[in-house]
Amino acid sequence: MKRTSVAHLNCSVAQTLEVVGEWWTLLVVRNLMFGQRRFEAIQGDLGIARNILSDRLGTLVAHGIVDRVKYQDHPERYEYRLTEKGRDLFGVIAALMAWGDRWAAPEGPPIHIVHRCGEVATATVVCDHCKEPLVLDEVRVTAGPAWRRTTA
Amino acid sequence: MKRTSVAHLNCSVAQTLEVVGEWWTLLVVRNLMFGQRRFEAIQGDLGIARNILSDRLGTLVAHGIVDRVKYQDHPERYEYRLTEKGRDLFGVIAALMAWGDRWAAPEGPPIHIVHRCGEVATATVVCDHCKEPLVLDEVRVTAGPAWRRTTA
Repeated sequence: MKRTSVAHLNCSVAQTLEVVGEWWTLLVVRNLMFGQRRFEAIQGDLGIARNILSDRLGTLVAHGIVDRVKYQDHPERYEYRLTEKGRDLFGVIAALMAWGDRWAAPEGPPIHIVHRCGEVATATVVCDHCKEPLVLDEVRVTAGPAWRRTTA
Repeated sequence: MKRTSVAHLNCSVAQTLEVVGEWWTLLVVRNLMFGQRRFEAIQGDLGIARNILSDRLGTLVAHGIVDRVKYQDHPERYEYRLTEKGRDLFGVIAALMAWGDRWAAPEGPPIHIVHRCGEVATATVVCDHCKEPLVLDEVRVTAGPAWRRTTA
């Protein structure tokens, strides 16, 4: 089943989910980030149906998030590598992980992210200006340059 | 169609997506964050089928992300309010929005987040220790307290 598109919604959250919001897609990205580059490895780790993984990788390639790269000639073998656009999704993955560690990990975090500073990092989403955490009660939204009403 | 569960994957990204990863769910959360609390308003704004919105709100209530609160007695009327657990998803929403603004908004950001510091904020995901951005090349993962292999 193809899910309904949300491309008509004039919102960068919707546009991001249009690209990576399908079920499994962000988990495939996670596996690529954590070093799995080959179809069989990702398929085995996620326990995902081959046709679905193939579909999701195709979507990621089509959107420039992943490159399909030949690493062997005889027989031809390919692996998948995140592009700059794909690597830039790490913040999203880290934010999802931090929320899950707080609210959906009763036995504690399954994995830790160790930052180059040497510490186990909890991803924190901050304002790029004042570096303070972005908290819902402390923000408001205004129209950006591409604002328009999109209600059907 | 119910998507395959990923609850068996021992990963906080997977556990988060198990709760909020279904198509439409994060957009419903976004609408609640931006002040829409009533079924009709969310339904109209997203252009989502009523039965799907009803299902997604039910999932959010079941997971303690949203409270269903009566605001009128005759006739009975309910609205939906984010709980603390739900409000804590703002970092995820802001990270998704920042990525979309960078990579999927050719005409510029549709909306701006204005932080209490007075500036238009671009959500940045940082290490809680050194406050530097979390970049994929500068992290490694290690086993956390609840680590176990989950490969099927």
